[in-house]
Amino acid sequence: MYDLLIQHATVLQVANGILSVLPQHDIAIVDRRIAAIAPEISPGLARETLTADGQLAIPGLINSHAHTAMSLFRGVAEDVPIEEWFNGYIWPLETNLTPEDVYWGTLLGLAEMIEGGVTCVADHYFMMDAIASAVQESGMRALLAWTLFSGADDQQQINTARQFVEQWHGAANDRIRVWMGPHSPYTCTPSLLQRVAQTARELGVGIHIHLSETAAQVAQSIATYGRSPVLVARDAGLFDVPALAAHVAHVSAEDIETLATHGVAVAVTPKTEMKLGIGVAPTLSLRSAGVTVALGSDGAASNNTYDILEAARLLALLEKLRNNDARCMPIDTAFELATVAGARALQWDGIGVLQVGARADLALVQCTTAHTQPLHNPVATLLYSAQSTDVTTVIIDGRIVMRDRVLLTIDKPRVLREVAARVERLTQRQTERRIAVYPELTADT
Amino acid sequence: MYDLLIQHATVLQVANGILSVLPQHDIAIVDRRIAAIAPEISPGLARETLTADGQLAIPGLINSHAHTAMSLFRGVAEDVPIEEWFNGYIWPLETNLTPEDVYWGTLLGLAEMIEGGVTCVADHYFMMDAIASAVQESGMRALLAWTLFSGADDQQQINTARQFVEQWHGAANDRIRVWMGPHSPYTCTPSLLQRVAQTARELGVGIHIHLSETAAQVAQSIATYGRSPVLVARDAGLFDVPALAAHVAHVSAEDIETLATHGVAVAVTPKTEMKLGIGVAPTLSLRSAGVTVALGSDGAASNNTYDILEAARLLALLEKLRNNDARCMPIDTAFELATVAGARALQWDGIGVLQVGARADLALVQCTTAHTQPLHNPVATLLYSAQSTDVTTVIIDGRIVMRDRVLLTIDKPRVLREVAARVERLTQRQTERRIAVYPELTADT
Repeated sequence: MYDLLIQHATVLQVANGILSVLPQHDIAIVDRRIAAIAPEISPGLARETLTADGQLAIPGLINSHAHTAMSLFRGVAEDVPIEEWFNGYIWPLETNLTPEDVYWGTLLGLAEMIEGGVTCVADHYFMMDAIASAVQESGMRALLAWTLFSGADDQQQINTARQFVEQWHGAANDRIRVWMGPHSPYTCTPSLLQRVAQTARELGVGIHIHLSETAAQVAQSIATYGRSPVLVARDAGLFDVPALAAHVAHVSAEDIETLATHGVAVAVTPKTEMKLGIGVAPTLSLRSAGVTVALGSDGAASNNTYDILEAARLLALLEKLRNNDARCMPIDTAFELATVAGARALQWDGIGVLQVGARADLALVQCTTAHTQPLHNPVATLLYSAQSTDVTTVIIDGRIVMRDRVLLTIDKPRVLREVAARVERLTQRQTERRIAVYPELTADT
Repeated sequence: MYDLLIQHATVLQVANGILSVLPQHDIAIVDRRIAAIAPEISPGLARETLTADGQLAIPGLINSHAHTAMSLFRGVAEDVPIEEWFNGYIWPLETNLTPEDVYWGTLLGLAEMIEGGVTCVADHYFMMDAIASAVQESGMRALLAWTLFSGADDQQQINTARQFVEQWHGAANDRIRVWMGPHSPYTCTPSLLQRVAQTARELGVGIHIHLSETAAQVAQSIATYGRSPVLVARDAGLFDVPALAAHVAHVSAEDIETLATHGVAVAVTPKTEMKLGIGVAPTLSLRSAGVTVALGSDGAASNNTYDILEAARLLALLEKLRNNDARCMPIDTAFELATVAGARALQWDGIGVLQVGARADLALVQCTTAHTQPLHNPVATLLYSAQSTDVTTVIIDGRIVMRDRVLLTIDKPRVLREVAARVERLTQRQTERRIAVYPELTADT
């Protein structure tokens, strides 16, 4: 007996690394896993059925780097450079946040992600208890990391993060996992980084960190430590455990070799990196060297959305342009970045693919609209024509969390009301009060 | 008495070149023009009312360069360089087209544009009678140009284009205008370009042409004519009439000066230019020199959509990245490119703005979704968070052409059926049979 049967989808199957398009196929789910993909499975064998005529079935998209609660700050800091973005807007505004704000902001961001076909997110923020609760309730799959900054209370922060790992790692039937989250080498001392690495080793978890976002950060690191941020992170022991580095826009050949050797994955967040004008990782070079490159949204205060289809499209377009080569990132590769590469980056087996035995994390995408017809090439349609609003139905860990555009696990009207009630207080801005300070950097430091 | 009253919108008004956000305003329309924008207009004065609570009212977006009927070929030629795209796919496939195919393909593309808030398109294609009929029926506003290529029948082509101008220019209450459309200097001889310019002068219409799409085209032009495509076009007299040049990705300082001096506008189509890896016009330099830069989609065979919001977003993101400057294309400028700059590029007064006296071409955009809330900054929301599917209602020339996502002038189910019935025949591909030949070019020709 199947728990759920999806009928008549055009399935973008990824099996053993090969993407194939299976027209008019059914997908059966048992015990939170995909049990069968076949042209015709008897509906008599299923407790529940969903018809997917005219829809693509795709593996759930993976958002490999986000600050989900920053949905609260969508659009507050436009057209400003990164220093002003941090010091003038974001870090002052974040002093206003309470755990309740973070909880509601996370639910808003998760609602948007689910509506856009995202079924797993690597989230990096603070007040993570509130975030873990929101993730648990929403049915989302998440890899959480409590952001640490150097300050007077380094040990207390490490203790908090450790307790968070102990409480939540593996929770919700293993839908929630927890890594350690030092913010970056420019906001954490080498000593803090070393202690975080030590804690991660003891706990048997990985590290999620920001690295080399800007050329100025790299120059500053070399001036201060004689080494790039990538090498500072390596030398602190951060790469002795599973590691996921966001951005990594500015890398030397030695950096790339180091990332490859240590199996460190990179989460590129193209929209944020373009919008702040800070640079986008050399995806092709990283991939050639064997580095896993996945896609993230970053926070909505810089990206303005949590749209991973858009991220895949942007990165493919950008690479084609800057390499003057229409062939250099084919549609299959862009699709891989948003799915199976995300699973590799989070070191999470059994997600990011549609194949028998995989976790039942998937989305259905409507392809009968004026902007997606005719359907000559389903993968191209998904990447270059579909919008995240074309996602109709989302299943995470075998559970339907959105059906026909209706969220089933999140009370969206309530979330929107709670967020609206908080907006005025949250946008009171006292720039002398900040959660951290972005250092004055210049590219030629 | 007003013909139509829109109530309670957040109005992105553009008056005298200044963008301002007017919360909770009403818009009254009389005789196809905007008669009033005010906080409260009595509904008793209106024959029909639309409520727009939670929605932005924006000037209709202008698509300054499209091949609308190419919706038929969405997704047929992915991940191929421009030579192969033309010679291996598009120009062979276009030999299959009949006027009926072009008619239905145009309606499909127009449906997509209206659904995405586009109210005016500059279309460049052949079998333009069929296209003009589709435009007339759909209620769209359009500047049409019949594409000319050099061949055995140059004079016959000019005659056809001339008759098309005479028949359609100013039709449908001036919703349809017609210019001449020589394809490009690499497919038209200087002699044909001269005769087209002469015809345009005689008819009192403008010229819509492709210029300098690739570095190789520029090198080839210099090798053949001793001048860039921009200068070839100028010397043929094309800039002695109103002129709109698509792409213009590769320009010298002399080219930019020439475009500025002659008031030639540039239609940038960032998604196509990125996707084919051919280069994107230096928008900031062009604007600094006084050249009008507007946004186009190009055809759906290269862009895969007709989404002008996406084009604005892409160009802003790209300029910020390649200038390493988050400030260099602020949200107001990107909005201008998609609206009022389009009107300037098409030399069409009274569109592209929301102000009293302007043509009633506008769109309402839902901003109560998870991906657009909270609404800290309506212009940023439109540009960086909204999707074209968030457009709910579209008015062109005072007529409601889409209401609450339902098209009122296009029978979309029929269009989708007609297109589906044509797909198999249209994608039969004999590469030795082409409507034109893309020359073998190399950048160092």
